[in-house]
Amino acid sequence: MSSPTSAPPRILIEPLVRAALLEDLGQAGDITTNALVPREAHAEAAFIARKPGIVAGLDLAKLSFELLDPAIEIDVKKPDGSEIRSGDTIAIVRGPAQGILTGERTALNFLCHLSGVATATAAAVAAVKGSKARIVCTRKTTPGLRALEKYAVRIGGGSNHRFGLDDAVLIKDNHIAIAGNVTEALRRARKGVGHMVKIEVEVDSLAQLKEALAFGVDAVLLDNMDPKSLAEAVAIVGGRAITEASGGVTLANAAAIAASGVDLISIGRLTHSAPALDIGLDFRE
Amino acid sequence: MSSPTSAPPRILIEPLVRAALLEDLGQAGDITTNALVPREAHAEAAFIARKPGIVAGLDLAKLSFELLDPAIEIDVKKPDGSEIRSGDTIAIVRGPAQGILTGERTALNFLCHLSGVATATAAAVAAVKGSKARIVCTRKTTPGLRALEKYAVRIGGGSNHRFGLDDAVLIKDNHIAIAGNVTEALRRARKGVGHMVKIEVEVDSLAQLKEALAFGVDAVLLDNMDPKSLAEAVAIVGGRAITEASGGVTLANAAAIAASGVDLISIGRLTHSAPALDIGLDFRE
Amino acid sequence: MSSPTSAPPRILIEPLVRAALLEDLGQAGDITTNALVPREAHAEAAFIARKPGIVAGLDLAKLSFELLDPAIEIDVKKPDGSEIRSGDTIAIVRGPAQGILTGERTALNFLCHLSGVATATAAAVAAVKGSKARIVCTRKTTPGLRALEKYAVRIGGGSNHRFGLDDAVLIKDNHIAIAGNVTEALRRARKGVGHMVKIEVEVDSLAQLKEALAFGVDAVLLDNMDPKSLAEAVAIVGGRAITEASGGVTLANAAAIAASGVDLISIGRLTHSAPALDIGLDFRE
Amino acid sequence: MSSPTSAPPRILIEPLVRAALLEDLGQAGDITTNALVPREAHAEAAFIARKPGIVAGLDLAKLSFELLDPAIEIDVKKPDGSEIRSGDTIAIVRGPAQGILTGERTALNFLCHLSGVATATAAAVAAVKGSKARIVCTRKTTPGLRALEKYAVRIGGGSNHRFGLDDAVLIKDNHIAIAGNVTEALRRARKGVGHMVKIEVEVDSLAQLKEALAFGVDAVLLDNMDPKSLAEAVAIVGGRAITEASGGVTLANAAAIAASGVDLISIGRLTHSAPALDIGLDFRE
Amino acid sequence: MSSPTSAPPRILIEPLVRAALLEDLGQAGDITTNALVPREAHAEAAFIARKPGIVAGLDLAKLSFELLDPAIEIDVKKPDGSEIRSGDTIAIVRGPAQGILTGERTALNFLCHLSGVATATAAAVAAVKGSKARIVCTRKTTPGLRALEKYAVRIGGGSNHRFGLDDAVLIKDNHIAIAGNVTEALRRARKGVGHMVKIEVEVDSLAQLKEALAFGVDAVLLDNMDPKSLAEAVAIVGGRAITEASGGVTLANAAAIAASGVDLISIGRLTHSAPALDIGLDFRE
Amino acid sequence: MSSPTSAPPRILIEPLVRAALLEDLGQAGDITTNALVPREAHAEAAFIARKPGIVAGLDLAKLSFELLDPAIEIDVKKPDGSEIRSGDTIAIVRGPAQGILTGERTALNFLCHLSGVATATAAAVAAVKGSKARIVCTRKTTPGLRALEKYAVRIGGGSNHRFGLDDAVLIKDNHIAIAGNVTEALRRARKGVGHMVKIEVEVDSLAQLKEALAFGVDAVLLDNMDPKSLAEAVAIVGGRAITEASGGVTLANAAAIAASGVDLISIGRLTHSAPALDIGLDFRE
Repeated sequence: MSSPTSAPPRILIEPLVRAALLEDLGQAGDITTNALVPREAHAEAAFIARKPGIVAGLDLAKLSFELLDPAIEIDVKKPDGSEIRSGDTIAIVRGPAQGILTGERTALNFLCHLSGVATATAAAVAAVKGSKARIVCTRKTTPGLRALEKYAVRIGGGSNHRFGLDDAVLIKDNHIAIAGNVTEALRRARKGVGHMVKIEVEVDSLAQLKEALAFGVDAVLLDNMDPKSLAEAVAIVGGRAITEASGGVTLANAAAIAASGVDLISIGRLTHSAPALDIGLDFRE
Repeated sequence: MSSPTSAPPRILIEPLVRAALLEDLGQAGDITTNALVPREAHAEAAFIARKPGIVAGLDLAKLSFELLDPAIEIDVKKPDGSEIRSGDTIAIVRGPAQGILTGERTALNFLCHLSGVATATAAAVAAVKGSKARIVCTRKTTPGLRALEKYAVRIGGGSNHRFGLDDAVLIKDNHIAIAGNVTEALRRARKGVGHMVKIEVEVDSLAQLKEALAFGVDAVLLDNMDPKSLAEAVAIVGGRAITEASGGVTLANAAAIAASGVDLISIGRLTHSAPALDIGLDFRE
Repeated sequence: MSSPTSAPPRILIEPLVRAALLEDLGQAGDITTNALVPREAHAEAAFIARKPGIVAGLDLAKLSFELLDPAIEIDVKKPDGSEIRSGDTIAIVRGPAQGILTGERTALNFLCHLSGVATATAAAVAAVKGSKARIVCTRKTTPGLRALEKYAVRIGGGSNHRFGLDDAVLIKDNHIAIAGNVTEALRRARKGVGHMVKIEVEVDSLAQLKEALAFGVDAVLLDNMDPKSLAEAVAIVGGRAITEASGGVTLANAAAIAASGVDLISIGRLTHSAPALDIGLDFRE
Repeated sequence: MSSPTSAPPRILIEPLVRAALLEDLGQAGDITTNALVPREAHAEAAFIARKPGIVAGLDLAKLSFELLDPAIEIDVKKPDGSEIRSGDTIAIVRGPAQGILTGERTALNFLCHLSGVATATAAAVAAVKGSKARIVCTRKTTPGLRALEKYAVRIGGGSNHRFGLDDAVLIKDNHIAIAGNVTEALRRARKGVGHMVKIEVEVDSLAQLKEALAFGVDAVLLDNMDPKSLAEAVAIVGGRAITEASGGVTLANAAAIAASGVDLISIGRLTHSAPALDIGLDFRE
Repeated sequence: MSSPTSAPPRILIEPLVRAALLEDLGQAGDITTNALVPREAHAEAAFIARKPGIVAGLDLAKLSFELLDPAIEIDVKKPDGSEIRSGDTIAIVRGPAQGILTGERTALNFLCHLSGVATATAAAVAAVKGSKARIVCTRKTTPGLRALEKYAVRIGGGSNHRFGLDDAVLIKDNHIAIAGNVTEALRRARKGVGHMVKIEVEVDSLAQLKEALAFGVDAVLLDNMDPKSLAEAVAIVGGRAITEASGGVTLANAAAIAASGVDLISIGRLTHSAPALDIGLDFRE
Repeated sequence: MSSPTSAPPRILIEPLVRAALLEDLGQAGDITTNALVPREAHAEAAFIARKPGIVAGLDLAKLSFELLDPAIEIDVKKPDGSEIRSGDTIAIVRGPAQGILTGERTALNFLCHLSGVATATAAAVAAVKGSKARIVCTRKTTPGLRALEKYAVRIGGGSNHRFGLDDAVLIKDNHIAIAGNVTEALRRARKGVGHMVKIEVEVDSLAQLKEALAFGVDAVLLDNMDPKSLAEAVAIVGGRAITEASGGVTLANAAAIAASGVDLISIGRLTHSAPALDIGLDFRE
């Protein structure tokens, strides 16, 4: 079986975890734990869900401990992607107490944030269930954490839009204004980028949509259209391009938007405003 | 006049902005803008609030453009800390169009996130207005962005708790469990850290509170107590230590908690779950 | 006019130039120049072509001097993309002699290497002139310099294939072997990647080609086929996918391959084996 | 037995391999392999020479896989320095298929480039066989890869000239022009550098050569002289300094140059223009 | 038992050791050892004290070898904090001879420097033995090595003052001059910093001291006062603040200063001028 | 006039100053200055010598301020290399008060340390005045600061020995033990390193010395010999190699050692144990 939600490899995440730990340790380190906890003390603690949701980010939690002390082990009970209920044990951490106490907050900061993104995504996916629409994220991500948040979206059942400015063309209204019109913008794009690069154009009106389709385009971003306009746009496209609804999507209106027949619904809120999932690390006697 | 909300200096924020830009540019850069926008094109665009809130992060937005093209200038209309209404112009950006289009998303990602933190903080501060309680943040921050989020909290009218594990002692329940009891934990802390380091202890009961006060402590964290217990605790403390209420604080119960007479109310949600403030960059003809 | 051959921005190239200078300076710096050349001495020198070719990399040459001494100025006579003959003056450098002498080799190492790539590309482009085939590079690049070499290929009139493993799917024979067959490989790819990602599959036979076309694919890599087989493959494709010839392409056989009607001809040699273009820095009295 | 061709230690090469992998992975990683190849799939593949030459760079190839997945093992059949024929198996790679497929290109980019440098060096060494001349490389290296290319030259049987501007004095024509004459240049050098630093001076004429010898110098670079002038210069030197021929050396004229009796022949082409050696990674069923 | 002198964690020290090794290796590495010592040679060597003192820095010495060759092992006989006499064996190093020879100087540079700091601290602590005064260090540290030197001070029996500008307020004379007077300075400090931050003020006179006490302050730095003035100041403070004597402290006058009853004596010399402790690495046959 | 004591270029020192500032600022920055000093306040302060010595490190002091605030200017009165008396004004700093107060300690830490090294070197140079002996430093430097300390030695009138393991061969007793004898060690060295690399061998006896001279060597390190033995060794060498006295050199015995006729006297203490020169930054009203 394939692995479309492959976690980012260690070579990508280790620098992020390292930076987060150093940010928390400062020059003096964990002065509380160093003063109170004997080096030889061992501890066992469990990541416990305090709210229901979807787990994401265990690799980062694990690395938060491992970089402090390789002797700390994590026994994962609910791997990334698991649907958890309040009270569920996600993983158990065992090893030297100093490292566990020092790494706790960094581990939780990654785990709660990414699980929050996965949970928000799963809610959006559930809202459009039964339609053909896929939920996708945007480049509205937290600076420095894009690859992680994109991964959490996949874990939540969503798909990824562009990872960066470099991996596909997305022509926005301002680009069109500078180029003059949709056709000229598309012409320049087709000429200026490689053959493996897809091109999407943002259209604000059905006129622009038709102009784009006449030139040929891989995808169209239908900006801030109501469900009725979206349905009309989908009909005009007639399968000639991928259709993406964008702007002002909420859990409340997602089903109506999906019913328009669009292929994709992009939601910036998944990555820039998802509340952290409440997970705690409970120590055991 | 003093400047308690001094922005983090450039030497601290430049690496963060640089990393965010590189994350978005990838190896190939902004292929859309490069293909569509002539190098000599100039543009003017305005950061416009789409929702009311408090502005924070303009230095980062500015640097997002400046690192791409030093010729881009920002004219700030509503500096960090300003209360803005929907539709307000926060700042105007002028210069080479390529750099403005390429830097737009990075600038907005910083600005919307930090303004979101400031706005959430201001709401909490407003909720306890009239009481003596100060709103403080925690170490539950986004990995890599702690200094920025702590700054945004100050911009929103809140105060900062510890920046890291290194700058004060906070003895939590797990530390106490390992040390044996509150007194022994405090004894180890006092012995193990420098004279400029304050010590706070988390107490779950009035018995623990009295034990801590008997030994002497700078601050007590009153964990998950209801307003009545908090008031009782404040009375017991009688000014001998700073009192901090923590756990489960919401905009709804903040006033009641503040009425207990505690000095501080700490809220993790300010930094880990504040939704981004909706700000757009509108280009002008 | 658009700028499809935009140079990589300074934020991308500065770390490379900085690393190259530090590699050459070591801890002790340019001990020859420091011992021999007075700090106040000024110099003027010219980059002179000793062989014909295409210029690429002047931004890097410029930065090699500027990072050593901002007082050094470059007056460019033949900007990137210029066709130069032996003896042509490419640029003139003026300023403090110490910085010019110290930066000379680093500047030349970038300039000669990238001009070599551009020159090799231009020769390949010339070889297929009159056909519809575009010359593209591969991921067979010098470690650490990919973005620069991809840029030099564009400067030479070529196009870029994938910049990395992340920006498009290229299914190779080994992927197919693991997936089982072409159809299953394509099915997994379509399911596993985002909607803005194009998919190319390498085919070794016309049977595989037909299988790929039956499923639907954006591009097909026709691996090591002779011109006759290529022409047959192009006919089978019939415009339903981009066709790319790959493997064993030389200046001698490029025209024959192009005559097969393929859209693209990819050549690893452009980036991994292009000889440096011979350029010198001549000091003037 | 001593080890003059010691490979650069891991502490030096790991950052280069890490950067090369990140350059190829981007933010999204190897989307093809992630989508198509199950995490549990294992593979075995062999590095096969497609052309004859000298192997160099296996440590880098190995690290390219190991940094992605420590479970991948390399069984080396032809260690660095081996002379290989077309078809030879250089090494066998075994382990998780995902990591092998993802690391393949980075491993090959290092291996083919460095083997190319070693092979070009070996050809030059062979060309002067029977003479006393040693083949040496220059500072005309690929930015960022100097230590690796210097190593590959040693592997190919050559010797290294300066590693950087810091480890020996090389007085060139422009330094002499600024100092006034050869004697003054040498005087400044002797005074300005430490006692463990050798001094070489570039001379364009026999007059300059005699001036240098009169002052005393460790080595003389005989710039662009024909074999007859070189022989004359060698006779004048009479063993009082190391003699180095430089400029315009090819495989065709190397033997004639060597016959002049010079100690060293330096060739920039070894590092800046050696074509990659053609090596492939063949997967086994 | 608690561990107030916990060594800085590996995540903090590894970058320092790595940088120190790279500084010593340059591009070419240890050319002497590489040329002379067979790769398979093993060696055993002992760190021997040539002067009496206190050991500090063995983790760094260990890492200096381990990063070069994980096969090298250190058997510690006198752990950090041990009082050693001339001739004592501190630790024994065993493993591949190349790595031991290459890492020797870096290991010793860390070990001798930090042991020097610990030894100087222990001498100062001994000088005030019998008094209540604790010896503390300052921010007058070697750039880049602050966390290490602060640790060595603790190992020597001293305590740490601020680690940086961020972890406590220290109001100096220049701050007071800008604020206008001590009271205004303290008022701004109290208002501008978080509740977990202690405030110390430097006073030059008893008048300033009284002003500070009247406002309330955590600690007072009594700058350059003679023992008699210090005693007077201590009497005035009467336990209301921590008292710190600073300026011109030597081993000769430390006891007299301590007799004044101050809580702390800060000495910059411990970190900026402690001579290295003489330790050698002796190879055994 | 030439510039043998060229300061390390900005590209080398900027990372060191940046790291030192970040080490001092932590995440929260200069909380004292930020709370007390208005952003618009300007200040003027003077670096004043409190002890006599030699100035070194002004470029680093300058950069410590400039990286915090480019508006801060330094007016140098006594440039690096100046001999200063107690009370002399070294430089005047003017600009925004916040940046001056925040950068003060970092600037002084560099300046006092490097001036201390220069001052110690000058004392040693003075002690051997009248002899032909040059004072040289060793690789016994502070980790991370080698290039700076080597520069300070030159500023103090000394010369530099090796900068690292890469720029010359120094065969020590342990190398000889492994190679078997002096002759074999030298043979391996000559064979294993490039032609621009000098070779020095440490000898403990006159027998070893003769063996080294018989093979031929660039320099001999006469280890821990008394002046009489040194004179004997110098006579044996008879100008055939550079002679270096090493081990146990003090200001007291330096003249006697120099009188033996050795070329060089190396002193580790210059870099690993030189006390900081006492310099203060005095603010002016």
